[in-house]
Amino acid sequence: MDTPTIQGRLLKAPENFIDPAGVKTVFQEAKAGRRHFIRQAFAAAATGLATGTALAQANPVPAGGGDPNILQLPEHTRGLGQGVATDGYGKPSRFEVNVQRRQSPGLTQTTQSSVSFAPLQSLFGIVTPSGLHFERHHQGWWDIDPSKHRLMVNGLVKQNMVFTMDELMRLPSVSRFHFIECGANTGMEWGNVAVPTCQYSHGMLSCSEFTGVPLIRLLELAGADLKQGKFVLAEGADGSSMTRTIPMSLITSGEVLVAYGQNGEMLRPENGYPLRLVVPGVQGVSWVKYLRRLEVGDQPYATKDEAIHYIDLLPDGTHRQYTGIQEVKSVVTTPSGGQVLLDKGFYNITGLAWSGRGKVSRVDVSVDGGRHWRQARIEGPSMSKCLTRFNLDWVWNGQPAIIQSRATDETGHVQATYKQLRAVRGSRSIYHNNAIQSWLVQENGEVKNVQVS
Amino acid sequence: MDTPTIQGRLLKAPENFIDPAGVKTVFQEAKAGRRHFIRQAFAAAATGLATGTALAQANPVPAGGGDPNILQLPEHTRGLGQGVATDGYGKPSRFEVNVQRRQSPGLTQTTQSSVSFAPLQSLFGIVTPSGLHFERHHQGWWDIDPSKHRLMVNGLVKQNMVFTMDELMRLPSVSRFHFIECGANTGMEWGNVAVPTCQYSHGMLSCSEFTGVPLIRLLELAGADLKQGKFVLAEGADGSSMTRTIPMSLITSGEVLVAYGQNGEMLRPENGYPLRLVVPGVQGVSWVKYLRRLEVGDQPYATKDEAIHYIDLLPDGTHRQYTGIQEVKSVVTTPSGGQVLLDKGFYNITGLAWSGRGKVSRVDVSVDGGRHWRQARIEGPSMSKCLTRFNLDWVWNGQPAIIQSRATDETGHVQATYKQLRAVRGSRSIYHNNAIQSWLVQENGEVKNVQVS
Repeated sequence: MDTPTIQGRLLKAPENFIDPAGVKTVFQEAKAGRRHFIRQAFAAAATGLATGTALAQANPVPAGGGDPNILQLPEHTRGLGQGVATDGYGKPSRFEVNVQRRQSPGLTQTTQSSVSFAPLQSLFGIVTPSGLHFERHHQGWWDIDPSKHRLMVNGLVKQNMVFTMDELMRLPSVSRFHFIECGANTGMEWGNVAVPTCQYSHGMLSCSEFTGVPLIRLLELAGADLKQGKFVLAEGADGSSMTRTIPMSLITSGEVLVAYGQNGEMLRPENGYPLRLVVPGVQGVSWVKYLRRLEVGDQPYATKDEAIHYIDLLPDGTHRQYTGIQEVKSVVTTPSGGQVLLDKGFYNITGLAWSGRGKVSRVDVSVDGGRHWRQARIEGPSMSKCLTRFNLDWVWNGQPAIIQSRATDETGHVQATYKQLRAVRGSRSIYHNNAIQSWLVQENGEVKNVQVS
Repeated sequence: MDTPTIQGRLLKAPENFIDPAGVKTVFQEAKAGRRHFIRQAFAAAATGLATGTALAQANPVPAGGGDPNILQLPEHTRGLGQGVATDGYGKPSRFEVNVQRRQSPGLTQTTQSSVSFAPLQSLFGIVTPSGLHFERHHQGWWDIDPSKHRLMVNGLVKQNMVFTMDELMRLPSVSRFHFIECGANTGMEWGNVAVPTCQYSHGMLSCSEFTGVPLIRLLELAGADLKQGKFVLAEGADGSSMTRTIPMSLITSGEVLVAYGQNGEMLRPENGYPLRLVVPGVQGVSWVKYLRRLEVGDQPYATKDEAIHYIDLLPDGTHRQYTGIQEVKSVVTTPSGGQVLLDKGFYNITGLAWSGRGKVSRVDVSVDGGRHWRQARIEGPSMSKCLTRFNLDWVWNGQPAIIQSRATDETGHVQATYKQLRAVRGSRSIYHNNAIQSWLVQENGEVKNVQVS
C-alpha cells in the first residue's frame, strides 16, 4: 500500500479566518493528515446506506503484504525507549502540538477580558482535557494560594461562616460530569458572521467531571433561611468581582456544587483554582471562579454582570434578563469548517449535543441541508446537563453536501433553525444562540461554515 | 477564625517508604494542609451517625466576621491577572506540583522496564488526568510519528489488511469509560510488604474515556474466519514486541477497541500513542501499546508475555496461566497511608471500586477492621468495567480505627479478605491480588498500611 502523500493537495485559506495562527494550524493539521481524511481508503460502493452496511459494502483497503513499512521495522521496534516518570506530570505527543486552545485577537481590547476557544474539531468523546478547556476571563486569571483562600457564607443565615479549603474538603463530596458553555458561544453567528471553524463557532464549550460539596450542604450548616432566601449571590475573588445571582430552586435540588476538583485533579488556575461554583445547565458566567462569598437574599441582586451583560436584545428593542439556561444544542465537529475531505468514500460523521434542561434524548443528522434526516447513534453514557457524543455513518459521493445536526432533549425541546430562532429573537443578540449549525462540504472537499435560511 | 497552623504537628516518616521523593511529598502536602484534614474544624458531636446526620450535628465553624483575610482584600481581588491563552495547553497550579506519578527506584533494573504509580490519594471522581496516568513499560516508551504508523490485520482472514491512522479515524468510532489496572497492582502485599501509601499499593490503576474502533469492525473488514478464529494475537511496536492473546469472545461482544483517543485527546506517548488495544476488564498488559499487528488464530499463542509472565504461582507449586480478568476490588483513598488526621471530627471517607466483570453494585465500609460494615454512597455514573467513586460520612472519635472497603459487583462477586484469598492462592503470587485493604488510623492521627488477618 502506498504511503498517503497529501502535500500539494492543500487548499485555499478559508475566508475571514479570525486568527492567523489558527489558519496555520488548519494547514499544518491538513498536511499531517490527521482528522482531515485525506485520500483514497475506502472507495464508496453506494451512498446513504444504513448504519454498518455502508462500511461493510465499501471496498477494503488493498492488502498490505508489500508495504515497505512493514518489512523495514522502524527504530522503535528494535531499540530501548525512554524510562518511566520521564515526566511526573506527562504531556501530549510532540505531533499534537497544534491541538491548542486559541484566542481571537481583536475580539476584546485586552487579553485579560477575553476568550480562548477549545479545539472541538480535534477532540474525541465527551471529556475536555483540562489543558484545552476554554477560557473566559473578566479581569485576568490568578493562581491563588489555596492555604490563604477563604469562602464566606452570609446574608439570610443564622450564623455567618468562613471555610478554609481544608474544611471544605472534609465535607461530603460528589463527582458529576457536566458541560459548561459561555452564554456568548456562537454569538457572532447572530449577525451572520460565519467564523471558519467549529473551534471559533462553538469552542466556548467544555465538559469535565467536577467534584465538590453541594452548595445546599453549606447553606444548611450556616442555617440559611430557605423560605425567605430565594436567591444566592455568588462573588469571585478576581479583580472583576464577578457577581451573579443563582435561584435557590437550582440549589435545593442539590445540583449546584462548590467545586474544587475537575477531571480528577484540582481545578486549573484559568478555571477558578482553588474553588468555583458549578451551576449545571446554566451559562458559564454563573459558574463563578475564585469563589469567595455566597450571600443568601430574598430577591435577585441585579449586579452589573447580570443587569447589563449577558442579556438578550429582542427585535422590539427591549432586553431579556436572567435567561441563563443553555437550551438544547448540537454541532457536528467532523467534518467541520476548515477540514478537508480529499476523496469520496466512507466517513464517520461525529459531533456533540447538550442541553441545560437534562439529557439529550435524540440527535438527527442531515447531509442535504435539512431536507432529509437520519437518527445518529448516541453511545456511551448519556448524562444530564452533560455533553453527549453522536456518530453517523456516511458515504460521500463527491457532490456538495450541507451537514447539519439537530438535537432533542428529554423535555422535548428541539433545536431550532436560524429562520425559526430569528423570527422570535431577531439578529441583534450576542448571547444564547442554539440554532442548527450548517457545514458545506464543497466538491473539492473543503468544508465551510454557511448559514441556511 | 484563626488561620490553620499545622507546622510543628508533622509526624514521623512512615516506615519502609519506597521512594524518598514520595516521603518528601507526603510531608510537603501535609504541611500544605491539603487532603490531610489537619485541625479543629468540625468538633465531633457524636460517632457513627447515619449519612447526613453526622454533619448536621457537628458544631459549625466559628463565625468568620472578624477574619482578617476577609477584611484585607488580597491582591487578586484588586489587580489585573494574566491573559487568555497564556498556555495554549494549560497545566496545573504551581501549588499542585507535588501531585505526580512516581516511580519506585529499585523495583526493576532499568527505568525502561519499570512502573510509575498514579497518585490516587490526591485524585477525585473517576477520571485520571492523562498526565498522571500510571505507566508500565517493557522496553521504554516512544513518541511514534502517526503518519508513519501502520496496523496490520492478518492470520485467518480472507485478505490481509494494513491501515494508516487516517484510515482508522474515518471508521465508525465509539467512546467508553474504562479502568485499566496492571495485573501486578498491589502485588507486594501478597508477601505482607505493606507499602506505605495507596499510590504505591494501588496506583497501577487509572481510568479514562477511550475512543476508537471496535476491533470486530476491523476483523469484519478483513473477512476474518470467526468460526476457526478463536483468538487474536496483539503485537506492539516497541522494543519488547509485546504480544498477548485475546479470546475472540471478548472481541465479538464489541467491547475490545483499537483506540487512539484518551480523555478527549490523542493517547499519550507513554500510554501507546498513536494506537493501543483497549480490553475492558482485563489486566493492562493485554492493552497492547503502539499496536502494530493483529493476527487471527485458532488457539492461544502462548507468547513469552503470557506463558511465563503474568501467571499465578499456587500453593501446590503449579502456575495458573491466562487469568487476566481483574476481579472485583476497591480501596479507600482518603484516609489512606501517609495521610494524617490531626484532630477528631467529621470526615468524608472516599475511595474507588472496580470490577473486570461489569458494574460495581455495592460498596461497604468498615472503620473497625471488618467487624461492622456500613453501605457507602455510590454517586455519579456507575459504568461497566469502570472506576466507581464511593463516599461515606464518618466522625472520628480520636481512637485507633481500621478502615476497610469491600466491593460487590453485579455478578455477585464479593471482595475477599487476605485470609480467604491466601487460603486458595497462597502468598507467593505477584499478580491478581484483589484482597480487602486495611488502613490503620492511629491515635496520633497517622494513617498506616496494615494487614488484618
